[in-house]
Amino acid sequence: MAPQKLKIAAAGLGRMGKRHALNFLNRTPRAELVAAFSPDPNELQWAKQHLEPYGVTLYSDYEQMLQHQDLQAVVIGTATSVHAEEAIKAMEKNLHVLCEKPLSTKLEVCKQVVAEAKKRPHLKVMCGFSRRFDASYRDARDKIDRGLIGRPAVVRSQTCDKHDPSGFFVEYAAWSGGVFVDMTIHDIDLTLWFFGDDVTLKSVSAYGVRAVQPDLAKHNDFDNAVGIVEFYNGKIAYYFCSRMMAHGQEDATEIIGTEGKLSVNANPQLNLVNHYHSGGITREVPPDYYGRFEMAFVQESNEFVASCLDNTPLPMKLTNAVKAVEIGSYLQEALVQGKQIRFDEAGRRIEAANL
Amino acid sequence: MAPQKLKIAAAGLGRMGKRHALNFLNRTPRAELVAAFSPDPNELQWAKQHLEPYGVTLYSDYEQMLQHQDLQAVVIGTATSVHAEEAIKAMEKNLHVLCEKPLSTKLEVCKQVVAEAKKRPHLKVMCGFSRRFDASYRDARDKIDRGLIGRPAVVRSQTCDKHDPSGFFVEYAAWSGGVFVDMTIHDIDLTLWFFGDDVTLKSVSAYGVRAVQPDLAKHNDFDNAVGIVEFYNGKIAYYFCSRMMAHGQEDATEIIGTEGKLSVNANPQLNLVNHYHSGGITREVPPDYYGRFEMAFVQESNEFVASCLDNTPLPMKLTNAVKAVEIGSYLQEALVQGKQIRFDEAGRRIEAANL
Amino acid sequence: MAPQKLKIAAAGLGRMGKRHALNFLNRTPRAELVAAFSPDPNELQWAKQHLEPYGVTLYSDYEQMLQHQDLQAVVIGTATSVHAEEAIKAMEKNLHVLCEKPLSTKLEVCKQVVAEAKKRPHLKVMCGFSRRFDASYRDARDKIDRGLIGRPAVVRSQTCDKHDPSGFFVEYAAWSGGVFVDMTIHDIDLTLWFFGDDVTLKSVSAYGVRAVQPDLAKHNDFDNAVGIVEFYNGKIAYYFCSRMMAHGQEDATEIIGTEGKLSVNANPQLNLVNHYHSGGITREVPPDYYGRFEMAFVQESNEFVASCLDNTPLPMKLTNAVKAVEIGSYLQEALVQGKQIRFDEAGRRIEAANL
Amino acid sequence: MAPQKLKIAAAGLGRMGKRHALNFLNRTPRAELVAAFSPDPNELQWAKQHLEPYGVTLYSDYEQMLQHQDLQAVVIGTATSVHAEEAIKAMEKNLHVLCEKPLSTKLEVCKQVVAEAKKRPHLKVMCGFSRRFDASYRDARDKIDRGLIGRPAVVRSQTCDKHDPSGFFVEYAAWSGGVFVDMTIHDIDLTLWFFGDDVTLKSVSAYGVRAVQPDLAKHNDFDNAVGIVEFYNGKIAYYFCSRMMAHGQEDATEIIGTEGKLSVNANPQLNLVNHYHSGGITREVPPDYYGRFEMAFVQESNEFVASCLDNTPLPMKLTNAVKAVEIGSYLQEALVQGKQIRFDEAGRRIEAANL
Repeated sequence: MAPQKLKIAAAGLGRMGKRHALNFLNRTPRAELVAAFSPDPNELQWAKQHLEPYGVTLYSDYEQMLQHQDLQAVVIGTATSVHAEEAIKAMEKNLHVLCEKPLSTKLEVCKQVVAEAKKRPHLKVMCGFSRRFDASYRDARDKIDRGLIGRPAVVRSQTCDKHDPSGFFVEYAAWSGGVFVDMTIHDIDLTLWFFGDDVTLKSVSAYGVRAVQPDLAKHNDFDNAVGIVEFYNGKIAYYFCSRMMAHGQEDATEIIGTEGKLSVNANPQLNLVNHYHSGGITREVPPDYYGRFEMAFVQESNEFVASCLDNTPLPMKLTNAVKAVEIGSYLQEALVQGKQIRFDEAGRRIEAANL
Repeated sequence: MAPQKLKIAAAGLGRMGKRHALNFLNRTPRAELVAAFSPDPNELQWAKQHLEPYGVTLYSDYEQMLQHQDLQAVVIGTATSVHAEEAIKAMEKNLHVLCEKPLSTKLEVCKQVVAEAKKRPHLKVMCGFSRRFDASYRDARDKIDRGLIGRPAVVRSQTCDKHDPSGFFVEYAAWSGGVFVDMTIHDIDLTLWFFGDDVTLKSVSAYGVRAVQPDLAKHNDFDNAVGIVEFYNGKIAYYFCSRMMAHGQEDATEIIGTEGKLSVNANPQLNLVNHYHSGGITREVPPDYYGRFEMAFVQESNEFVASCLDNTPLPMKLTNAVKAVEIGSYLQEALVQGKQIRFDEAGRRIEAANL
Repeated sequence: MAPQKLKIAAAGLGRMGKRHALNFLNRTPRAELVAAFSPDPNELQWAKQHLEPYGVTLYSDYEQMLQHQDLQAVVIGTATSVHAEEAIKAMEKNLHVLCEKPLSTKLEVCKQVVAEAKKRPHLKVMCGFSRRFDASYRDARDKIDRGLIGRPAVVRSQTCDKHDPSGFFVEYAAWSGGVFVDMTIHDIDLTLWFFGDDVTLKSVSAYGVRAVQPDLAKHNDFDNAVGIVEFYNGKIAYYFCSRMMAHGQEDATEIIGTEGKLSVNANPQLNLVNHYHSGGITREVPPDYYGRFEMAFVQESNEFVASCLDNTPLPMKLTNAVKAVEIGSYLQEALVQGKQIRFDEAGRRIEAANL
Repeated sequence: MAPQKLKIAAAGLGRMGKRHALNFLNRTPRAELVAAFSPDPNELQWAKQHLEPYGVTLYSDYEQMLQHQDLQAVVIGTATSVHAEEAIKAMEKNLHVLCEKPLSTKLEVCKQVVAEAKKRPHLKVMCGFSRRFDASYRDARDKIDRGLIGRPAVVRSQTCDKHDPSGFFVEYAAWSGGVFVDMTIHDIDLTLWFFGDDVTLKSVSAYGVRAVQPDLAKHNDFDNAVGIVEFYNGKIAYYFCSRMMAHGQEDATEIIGTEGKLSVNANPQLNLVNHYHSGGITREVPPDYYGRFEMAFVQESNEFVASCLDNTPLPMKLTNAVKAVEIGSYLQEALVQGKQIRFDEAGRRIEAANL
């Protein structure tokens, strides 16, 4: 008898939603993409051509899709604002959930999802942070575990996008949660991975500039920002995020330990080609995060499916995703207000009056 | 109605055969692996576990497999010595063929396969040279086509394996065709790709050493070899192959044009991690060619399938594969005899007496 | 008639003092090292062997040395605590002064030196920040001037020393002024160079850990520290300094502009050698700042001398050196107190009560 | 008493001659440049301004210069055609000699110089091969000596010049000795250094193209050439030289041993700057060999002087320089004739009739 495949549905067929759908259709051998949903007629049109012929039933209604026969799981790649609601609805239908990050830009909503998931321990509910599935980051983590750098004490991490001169990200800032929630959340998640998710916040500081998009002011956001997160017990992380890179996507991380250091992507590159010309030697850089992390998303799909089918632990905890949003929100608050935020050793925020 | 998938069978389930089978099973969406063959009980045992459950019928007889119902294509990953025979048998059954390189280490046998393929122009018959499907090599080719380096005049290319202290390759040398046929054939194929496959041989020279495996002498082979291939009309390629690398696989190429240069893999690396330690900064290197070219093999499977299903031209000509073997054989002959081999402008070998 | 050479004396023959003396003796063609001073008998012993035979008169008293016949200039490489006093004394003797950084770890003392220098505009008084004389940093500056990266908006810069397990730097912390004054001062100076020295401070934040030398607590210092300096008009600099590197000296800088980015030393290396071995590919790193900046110090000597002899402007302003100390001191204060420091647009510090 | 300085004269004040003169004047502390010679009035005019004011006596007659009072040594940087004659004349005046490479493009003339030097063992006579004084090549050599790569078996080395579109090198080819004697001689010298200068030639093969300067045909020379030199006892070197680089000077070497590999300059770079722009990330490359090897020339001057003053062995043997010319000449002959040249184990050339 053929081994069981996980019957999964894809919610949302926008840029990232399409990629998830195709990854589950074509590059996740133990999964079977049986359904897909989008509220957007254009996206459904695309699906008619690229999904339907391969046996995928299309829905313009999310809840209808959840009732697709024998459905076991949902991958949610819709707009962030509905992630949480859709995740909870799926759980209520007894479905496993892989949700694009973040669960929500609002901490309270994130926590709600976690609470719902806790009620159903037999369900696998994961919020995907793609870098945890990237071969280079995993190698770094493995080298840390093997003690190659001693005790990690400082993390430097950056998420830097190629500048989009269309200014799309100005409007996007209205609902993205701000640069630290939208971009740096990945760096925060990596920090929790490398430092351990039991670290306790001590202080948060952040500053930013609007160098190429002054209009971001209307959404209280910035196109370049720097932040420092201090943890109790001698650990510091510092972050840079930017939407202004001329050369492409540059997501880089350093983990600095008492006996050595690891860097990931200190030399960004699209591939293994160098072009030697009269101006020097040039290498290209991936134009966007998918160019850098495509295979990490494929890996994520496969590991999520394995965990569902084999009932093994998920590769990352849902609570981490919440903690990353929490720290990102503090950074964004510090950024907007230009003020340091501090915490006591129990992790309680210390109000300014008590500083 | 669901789009048609190419029903394909895998012949040979050794190291590379397994990979082909799994790639067609899991990473080639438009293909359906319906059958697999191996004469080896251990390999069949593996297939019982990894292929049969997914609907793949197993055969211990190649010809029986060819009769599998509705079969449309075969991927041949058996021992080199039977490639040609199996390819011809498949063609005789009206099947498309993707054959691991080389078709044969013997030029005459290669030409026979080409002749059989020519009789059946409706069949797609390809001998896979994985590097042609590698994203970096393709980028290099694309940059050449865009004129970025002017006219290519010199190619330097090397295929260097991590040293296998087991000495396996000593026995392997008995039937590999020699280092230039077994390894450098990839570099020759790249040369034909970058220079154009209409180049005419002018001379061939080669020299080698047995630095780590003196026993290679019994098969007239070497563990390190250097060769120069001169073409008419001002083009030169020079090659290095080695089975002695301490650090891993290092396959690198330079294409030097009248107005610029391209390098592929001048800085070998396993991934994007650098480890900073008391001895300096270290990066790792892929341990073998599959670590370097895995995704190229996946790409190859997908393009072969598309060509079969859509009846579009194959991404590379079968005659190239023969030409690569031909040049490789000359290099090997020059290597063993320590003598230059020359050709007239019609491509006819000039015998020593006439030099 | 032979062109005039600048008669210069070297004060201080410790580690860096020796290097200055030898650079002026051997690698500064337009200078003549005529005298040297040290209060330390061991250092004088060294000078007896390495300087005296070449016509350098030795002194154990600084003021006596200043009276050396026809002396025109002094290079000060003594302990930081006496830099300012010695510089002023030299000016009072009408001598040009090249002083090792910093003029003082105390801002008031720095300002005094500047005031004394202002009284004597015919004298060349420079506080050497070696990186301004480094070919790579100059190339970066030149590329900025040519508009290659648009308007610089963010600077990231780090000064990271190889870990000295002897713990010497614990004692050193008693009088170094702290890591931000001792190390990051170079990064601050670079920031002023790249942003323009007319930038106005907006806020300063800093955090640190004691990862390898807990004893630094007794001097209120840290072995790793991160700081952010915000300037008015949309400019941010962020810094990392560390005394914990396993691999060697790693001083790196990025200048991020609205249209591009420059990095200096993103790939640290001792030389052009790579070693390929069974663990991968390794390059070494300079063990200390002199290994990285030796030629910058030579360049500095030569440019200082040219400026004195030709009465041309010095390559950098003395006031910059003070501004770098000022910002470094604020960073150190923020670090020790764990509090943000803010400034109004006139550059006046805003006291906590008014925040 | 002041330590003795070596009184040295510079012969030839062309491009390289000027550099030697200035290096001995300014960057060789134990030397005193006392005289300089050029037959060229323009060069003497330059010297009037740049050397004479510093106490250097100028001569338009070489033999007169040799009679300069108390002269101890000569650095010869004239045209290659007079190197040997001038070197011998200097020896006859009992002077140490540092001669630019090559002693001569004619093997017989080289041998004459060696013979003259042998008669005067108290004189230091060196033919400078700058790469032996380069910090990176020395590090490579040191690592070989420490056994880090086992036994060296293969050397790959290239000397590649930036393309000079003026075509100057076409005329230069009339008397340069050809590309293998003019350029590859450095790579051959390195080979002798890494393999040991007692290696015995087994065969020489070479091929070339005229890709950018077809006019080189009139001097039987090429703008790109590849050669293989086989030695007895399992050692091979292969070379590439080119005058066609778009990006600048690229001189690179690999030493491949039984247990590891070393590369020197696998990643050419002008300095430590990377420029990130919309086309990718670019680093520049030195425009010429002096940009790459400037400090090696300074080192060479200093070591030559130390050897003369202290009567210690020279850092390299004069006979090596002859052997490099010899092998270079064979390569050039093989290149021009398109034929392999072979040698017996005693190093005697095997004539074609006996092949």
